Amino acid sequence: MPEAPDFDGWSCPLPLRGQDRVVIGHGGGGRLSAELIENIFLPAFGTSPEAELHDSAMLDVRTAERLAFSTDSYVVRPLFFPGGSIGDLAVNGTVNDIAMSGAQPLALSAGFILEEGLAMNVLGRIAEEMGAAARRAGVRVVTGDTKVVEVGLADGLYVNTAGVGVIPDGVDIRPSRARAGDAVIVSGPIGLHGIAVMSRREGLEFGTEILTDSAPLNGLVAAMLAASTDLHVLRDPTRGGVAASLCEIAATAHLGIEFEESTIPVPPEVAAACSFLGLDVLSIANEGKLIAVVPPEVVDDVMSAMHAHEFGRRACVIGRMVPEHPGVVVARTAFGSSRVVDVPLGEQLPRIC
Amino acid sequence: MPEAPDFDGWSCPLPLRGQDRVVIGHGGGGRLSAELIENIFLPAFGTSPEAELHDSAMLDVRTAERLAFSTDSYVVRPLFFPGGSIGDLAVNGTVNDIAMSGAQPLALSAGFILEEGLAMNVLGRIAEEMGAAARRAGVRVVTGDTKVVEVGLADGLYVNTAGVGVIPDGVDIRPSRARAGDAVIVSGPIGLHGIAVMSRREGLEFGTEILTDSAPLNGLVAAMLAASTDLHVLRDPTRGGVAASLCEIAATAHLGIEFEESTIPVPPEVAAACSFLGLDVLSIANEGKLIAVVPPEVVDDVMSAMHAHEFGRRACVIGRMVPEHPGVVVARTAFGSSRVVDVPLGEQLPRIC
Repeated sequence: MPEAPDFDGWSCPLPLRGQDRVVIGHGGGGRLSAELIENIFLPAFGTSPEAELHDSAMLDVRTAERLAFSTDSYVVRPLFFPGGSIGDLAVNGTVNDIAMSGAQPLALSAGFILEEGLAMNVLGRIAEEMGAAARRAGVRVVTGDTKVVEVGLADGLYVNTAGVGVIPDGVDIRPSRARAGDAVIVSGPIGLHGIAVMSRREGLEFGTEILTDSAPLNGLVAAMLAASTDLHVLRDPTRGGVAASLCEIAATAHLGIEFEESTIPVPPEVAAACSFLGLDVLSIANEGKLIAVVPPEVVDDVMSAMHAHEFGRRACVIGRMVPEHPGVVVARTAFGSSRVVDVPLGEQLPRIC
Repeated sequence: MPEAPDFDGWSCPLPLRGQDRVVIGHGGGGRLSAELIENIFLPAFGTSPEAELHDSAMLDVRTAERLAFSTDSYVVRPLFFPGGSIGDLAVNGTVNDIAMSGAQPLALSAGFILEEGLAMNVLGRIAEEMGAAARRAGVRVVTGDTKVVEVGLADGLYVNTAGVGVIPDGVDIRPSRARAGDAVIVSGPIGLHGIAVMSRREGLEFGTEILTDSAPLNGLVAAMLAASTDLHVLRDPTRGGVAASLCEIAATAHLGIEFEESTIPVPPEVAAACSFLGLDVLSIANEGKLIAVVPPEVVDDVMSAMHAHEFGRRACVIGRMVPEHPGVVVARTAFGSSRVVDVPLGEQLPRIC
């Protein structure tokens, strides 16, 4: 066999095609970019073949008057974790942000920042999981962008999604609509996403494997709105957890919140992990849960609708909005005492989404 | 004075407030994130104080039927370059992507990925320049997100913007609408942005300082549409330059394009830099130029409207769509010969936007 040439320090100016790693040229807007779109993104996102590749996507909104518009960048580490990946997280997270205004998501964008050298099959799998998550949520990824940065200037892959959704007529959901006496609902067991990511990242094992709760909540929100359009506030307790969401609602509404700590559903394995690690479960990120603030007269209807939906089966009323101590969230503990719940300063678990 | 403690290897678990560098907690969704939004982003983007901070922004679109939706991530290096920065680039780039469908931009999102340790005044200046660029374009940044990654996992700052715009009734602008006989117009001198960024990055000097042409083109597009709604194609020749845009139009329209190379306005200092560096000016990125394909009967009106606008003063017709050689772009050179213009494989100048 001929002697292999010395490739050390050699970099191909026009990189070989059909390669299995991302190269800088994949972000260049030329042929390699086009191949990436054609071979990875279009198949994954299931864009119709007649769609024209253009600088922007065209959305038909007909009679809609109000749109919800949101964005999130995803930098979670690791890219794959128990029960999910950065791909479905990036879809569910933005779908949920849109859904928290009562809107049904219409379309998503996907902006990738890839680290040179990323394995093409990693990118392919993530794109596929984004496509699958989008289909599950009933939304389409309609426009995108890819940039490539040199080795060491990203952590494999970052992805931003932005989303546009249509707010149904008569729906007005925002933190300042909370009223004293409103019930505060949480849609299910908390803390799963944060602990799932961290267990994989830090190599921790907690007996049972803890899976992320990452899920699209637009269907649950639609079911709740079908029960009553008079929902006052919806919020997904992601970074900062339930604590941050409750504090933001209280601050914006200039009302207090009181809740029974023992009524919040916490899976035993999450409770064990938090106790072991000294973390407050109220500050752990969730990705498939919501907090709802609803007037007392519709609580029963809304709760029934939630219990009938796969992502709200374990919903429960945890507390209520009170006129006292505006802006302050108070938890009543199992021991009969109470404590003030504060917004975390930073984050207990960075890079969780 | 007391002896200073040894800070090597020490990292503050609850970082000091009022600090001049980004810390991980600024991306955590807690108080530090809120301070960043309040002290840097809201003042820079000029959001109205009554606006509610919520997971998504609400857009009022009333009678609009069609929306344009686009996204781009910006990873340009360096963050500041002659005539601009990543901040105004991130606004102009997405405004222009929206405008290339004939839409007037309605709202932008901003998703930041910050490297831990980024100087706060760098972030502040970039946010200010985004705000100023948005006001210049007549658009608002209405929703955003900030993530922080550890030192070495980004290059200071990456930013993604997504945009939503309203497409006026009767406007149908897309590559497949090009017809044989249509004129191909370029809105002004090309190559400035790519060379401006590279000159700063590589420390090159070319006698005269070359400034980026980064500009919002929605006003120019509105002026062109006022002259005729029958524009067939608009395209901003960013990554891949004029060459990539012409090739994409030819391929999508299944038509050829022929143009006179000498009619394309190239600033002498750009020509000199390209010649010195062995680059093809047709492949250099622009950020404030557009290519228009318009039917012959409206060319004069459209050209007059362009010449009357500050960003189209030096617009000229460079060629036309032809039925021959579909998908192939042919340049007639100054020497009477012709050459096929091809899509660059990757990028001559990576990280240009």
